[in-house]
Amino acid sequence: MKCECGREAIERVGGRYYCKECYSKRYLSLVERSIRKYGILKRGEKVLAAISGGKDSVAMIAALKELEDKLGIKLEALHINLGIGEYSRKSEEVSRKVCEELDVPLHVVYLSEYGFTIGDVKRKACSVCGNAKRYIMNRFAREEGFDVIATGHCAEDIVANVLKNLYSGNFEWSEKLLPRIEGYFKFVSKAKPLYEIGEKENLLFVLSKGITFLPDECPKAPDPKWKELVYEIEKKIPGFKKGVLRSLVRREKVESELKSCKICGEPTSAEICQFCRNVKKFGKVRKIPL
Amino acid sequence: MKCECGREAIERVGGRYYCKECYSKRYLSLVERSIRKYGILKRGEKVLAAISGGKDSVAMIAALKELEDKLGIKLEALHINLGIGEYSRKSEEVSRKVCEELDVPLHVVYLSEYGFTIGDVKRKACSVCGNAKRYIMNRFAREEGFDVIATGHCAEDIVANVLKNLYSGNFEWSEKLLPRIEGYFKFVSKAKPLYEIGEKENLLFVLSKGITFLPDECPKAPDPKWKELVYEIEKKIPGFKKGVLRSLVRREKVESELKSCKICGEPTSAEICQFCRNVKKFGKVRKIPL
Repeated sequence: MKCECGREAIERVGGRYYCKECYSKRYLSLVERSIRKYGILKRGEKVLAAISGGKDSVAMIAALKELEDKLGIKLEALHINLGIGEYSRKSEEVSRKVCEELDVPLHVVYLSEYGFTIGDVKRKACSVCGNAKRYIMNRFAREEGFDVIATGHCAEDIVANVLKNLYSGNFEWSEKLLPRIEGYFKFVSKAKPLYEIGEKENLLFVLSKGITFLPDECPKAPDPKWKELVYEIEKKIPGFKKGVLRSLVRREKVESELKSCKICGEPTSAEICQFCRNVKKFGKVRKIPL
Repeated sequence: MKCECGREAIERVGGRYYCKECYSKRYLSLVERSIRKYGILKRGEKVLAAISGGKDSVAMIAALKELEDKLGIKLEALHINLGIGEYSRKSEEVSRKVCEELDVPLHVVYLSEYGFTIGDVKRKACSVCGNAKRYIMNRFAREEGFDVIATGHCAEDIVANVLKNLYSGNFEWSEKLLPRIEGYFKFVSKAKPLYEIGEKENLLFVLSKGITFLPDECPKAPDPKWKELVYEIEKKIPGFKKGVLRSLVRREKVESELKSCKICGEPTSAEICQFCRNVKKFGKVRKIPL
């Protein structure tokens, strides 16, 4: 099949055939529209894009690079090496390669600098990992003067997390899934430029553009059942995903009392922040004085 | 198979066989435990149980009648005739029969007294019906001096509504799905004694006790896809239902600004309450001055 422009089509989306070039254009305009609609990124902002090397974060940084001038942002990238053996080595390598290809300045932080790695963590690794990433991203961004942190969460990630929070009794956490969370206290603003974009669209974009990415799943990856569930519900209730995403942005913000962690001074609602508790629990030698 | 008591079993629950008598005992103790755990009903309260004649509300009123002395409550029932042709006629008949069998004083209110019936409503009948029931229940209960309104919502109803609210952008409505909502402003307290009880357990209870109930579905019943979805998710994520129910009770209450409806004085967050707008939209002759 042919694209409307006459070139060979690579994909059919919403009844139309697209070639690589036209698909990429369409993708970029969707991302741009989404960013403007929700005010995800603002003119003049210094943006720190957190990238793992996977399809979603690579799609995000490639799209942001193409939209950099149009949106009036200044883009740099952060990769956190989590110390999950070969997987982390490859992730770092791919992240370096992508940023070189795209000509985006890259910062790399090693979790091991804090005295432990996710490779060390035997139980509940995903929750420890998530916490570490949030901690490092936020601290790095604030200390280096970034205005906002952008992450590559896609639509399915967000809906899967809403359902998971609903199931596990932490629904209030869903506040954190909003497309833009303004900074407050010691938190740097957070942005999800791919809030409305599906993971298949991200994959197709990086393939269309021929950008390097790491197809490997994290060896510690959680049970994929939540994301599968999103696909199953969508089949039964078409529009469910979009409905939930829209629903989320309509909710009101609830803030909890925050203070400074007694050990490191980072923001926390407890006496000692979760990251410091994890450092204490899993850390061997602390290389960075807090 | 035999029940542990030696009698003929009728059902297998959680690996155990139950006869009618032992099943009913188990059901009542589950309902009682639930009521105590969430403080759904309180000693000394005058309870108005709203019944439709269906399995869930019949199970509720039968269970509450058996627990009446133990819980220290005073039980009466309310049936609202919604004017949905033959279905409403049968619902009223069954409700009258059940209350006679159980020796519970019954009040019957006809929606037609307000100048319209659900039979008149062509589009979005379910939402108009829900609003009418809530309005009448609340007003009747308050004016007649009841402390709390009990409804027969079962676990699947609640989880289906949570998902629906999540999808339709009205997540805050899920506050109304809590097992107990204290009265405020002009609202009488609301209770859901079957919050944790599944619809199959309710059905088995009324069958075990041989109590009359109406098996008919409302001819205006909404698409059953949401409840089906609950069953499908439960199959994939066992415990999802319980997780959501627990999650809900852990959330904090958000209250919206309330005022008195300019027409009828009932509580509303708008100038004119939804019920009065519906009366205006669908009503023919208003028989009750508001």
